[in-house]
Amino acid sequence: MSGQVHSERQGHLIVVSLLHPGKLNAMSCAMWHGLRSVFQEIAQDPGLRCVVLRGDGGQFCAGGDIAEYPDFRFSEAGLRNFHEHEVWPGLDAVQSCELPVVAQIEGNCMGAGLELAACCDLRIAGTSTRFGAPIAKLGFPMAPREIELVAAQIGPSLAKEILFEAATLGAQRLFQTGFLSRVVDDAQVGREAMATACRIAALSPQAAKLNKRTLRALQAGSLAGDLAADPAAYAWADSSEHREGILAFLEKRSPEF
Amino acid sequence: MSGQVHSERQGHLIVVSLLHPGKLNAMSCAMWHGLRSVFQEIAQDPGLRCVVLRGDGGQFCAGGDIAEYPDFRFSEAGLRNFHEHEVWPGLDAVQSCELPVVAQIEGNCMGAGLELAACCDLRIAGTSTRFGAPIAKLGFPMAPREIELVAAQIGPSLAKEILFEAATLGAQRLFQTGFLSRVVDDAQVGREAMATACRIAALSPQAAKLNKRTLRALQAGSLAGDLAADPAAYAWADSSEHREGILAFLEKRSPEF
Amino acid sequence: MSGQVHSERQGHLIVVSLLHPGKLNAMSCAMWHGLRSVFQEIAQDPGLRCVVLRGDGGQFCAGGDIAEYPDFRFSEAGLRNFHEHEVWPGLDAVQSCELPVVAQIEGNCMGAGLELAACCDLRIAGTSTRFGAPIAKLGFPMAPREIELVAAQIGPSLAKEILFEAATLGAQRLFQTGFLSRVVDDAQVGREAMATACRIAALSPQAAKLNKRTLRALQAGSLAGDLAADPAAYAWADSSEHREGILAFLEKRSPEF
Repeated sequence: MSGQVHSERQGHLIVVSLLHPGKLNAMSCAMWHGLRSVFQEIAQDPGLRCVVLRGDGGQFCAGGDIAEYPDFRFSEAGLRNFHEHEVWPGLDAVQSCELPVVAQIEGNCMGAGLELAACCDLRIAGTSTRFGAPIAKLGFPMAPREIELVAAQIGPSLAKEILFEAATLGAQRLFQTGFLSRVVDDAQVGREAMATACRIAALSPQAAKLNKRTLRALQAGSLAGDLAADPAAYAWADSSEHREGILAFLEKRSPEF
Repeated sequence: MSGQVHSERQGHLIVVSLLHPGKLNAMSCAMWHGLRSVFQEIAQDPGLRCVVLRGDGGQFCAGGDIAEYPDFRFSEAGLRNFHEHEVWPGLDAVQSCELPVVAQIEGNCMGAGLELAACCDLRIAGTSTRFGAPIAKLGFPMAPREIELVAAQIGPSLAKEILFEAATLGAQRLFQTGFLSRVVDDAQVGREAMATACRIAALSPQAAKLNKRTLRALQAGSLAGDLAADPAAYAWADSSEHREGILAFLEKRSPEF
Repeated sequence: MSGQVHSERQGHLIVVSLLHPGKLNAMSCAMWHGLRSVFQEIAQDPGLRCVVLRGDGGQFCAGGDIAEYPDFRFSEAGLRNFHEHEVWPGLDAVQSCELPVVAQIEGNCMGAGLELAACCDLRIAGTSTRFGAPIAKLGFPMAPREIELVAAQIGPSLAKEILFEAATLGAQRLFQTGFLSRVVDDAQVGREAMATACRIAALSPQAAKLNKRTLRALQAGSLAGDLAADPAAYAWADSSEHREGILAFLEKRSPEF
């Protein structure tokens, strides 16, 4: 089995790593499955507050594992199965995660890598990281759900540049237009991603989950008025985190969540 | 009663000021009401062409008045009432204003301040202005309508950075990614906001109202095709402003609106 | 008849030029018709892979031909007919083109010019190019379909700055916020646009068409899940371009499309 997804818990954090040595962590079918498994475990661990997604060896992910493609992509059923029942459930596991997910992006962030980055909430990259999806060189388009995901996060213009011209873009361009939260020296990406995750983990976990739920619902097409009308929309009024946050502020002390 | 909203008419312009001395103009319930009243008066004044929204004393608005919160926020009914019947009608009064609204943003633009800025049409800020909504420190999420409002204007990535990490962002970042129309020296923000409002007031008021109506309808989910099919969509064909604008151009003179 | 639209085929490319000498290529009614005709011919030419849209004489397009306006714009029926049956079909012909369209943007890109640029997929501009839609000086608003088109590509904040303040913006601002793919020296715009079109034409035409179809459907409000569920969504599995792209990669050679 080629390629794996590892996870390592560190207090309130969990670091999820893509590993496919010699292939710049290109996603194999086994890795799409592995990613789903790891995020299912994360969903059942109430002590976690934040996830870091990274690739091993200074590379985020260079795309899909093309060596596997001739086995299944040239049949319509196989191709549909791959995108709808392998890739998408893996991506959806990341973007459906209740916890904030920080992408630690180094080296190549291409194709499936760009899609995985688009599923994360905050994105920290190194100055020399490259972004793209040069699949027009491979003779095929991006699947509909994957285009929607990527275009929603990088915007229509950059999506077209990447898809029509097979352009690769630098970190500075993706910071400037808003996709990346920050760009740091290549050697500092891991440190900055962990520092970000620690900052998030020290804040109210309830606020993070509720904000993420609302943002995801809006992205999926829900109307804010409908979300607000939900009888449960303000059920957190009497919660201990809400009381602690406000009382700590008024007592001029740091809150403890 | 703590905190007030003042307004001062100057020809075709009206300057609306948030005042809450000693609290960086944090919005009290009284101020949400006051804001609504001021914008109701604006709606009934046919001589006005542009609104400037600012905060007193070199501060836009640092958020909500947290000192008031223990009185009502820990009950579900009180919390819902606050967001749905105090905050939202205030925000909606600003964003529903028929006239272009210019935000003059100095100092802190946090929480409710960021939401108010998002309700404006043009945003002028000073180089040292800070933006954010660090409510994850206060143990609570942003209400659904308020998240939708903010995310639509600053984009999903910055919204997540602000909400999950309680990040505060500088004016340059919010200019670069498009939220701010321009950034000027702190000492020039008021002058630039007024100059912008004067430029707007010299242009066609009819064009401004019709453009704003269309932009608001699109933002609220209307389809352009439906708006265009409205029998009234082109009712301005024979209006004096339309004639004046086109004839002035052809006669190589400045139009008078 | 004042103003024309020319086209010139060059191998897999076609260059479409706006020509209205002495008027900075302002769009006359004849030119809106001409644009539609040219794109209808493009739709029937299976050998084409990419379109370049440009204006003659170092100018993209300065707007509509205002000299024609008194003849029809002051009647409601004439105005509606102009926007819905002259302008919109011309714009829609460009944005509905199955092939990637590269805008070569020099000089003025105003009003109808900005709208035409918004219909293209990649946008290359010169450093001194100016962008705007100062129609508030002409006493009239932008038509609903045209506002939707422009705001979707430049974002709500820049759209408001352009419409309410009649602001003209430089190329750097529109690159920074994502509308432009790149900005080059004024003298290099044509060369860079052609080089971009050649790069696109060397890639998989099938991938371009399928990606564009998906992006257009999403922009028009389709859900990715519905597009993916279409029985034809993966019909390209066994296509020669798909096989060629993947096999060429595995054989470490350049693909031939």
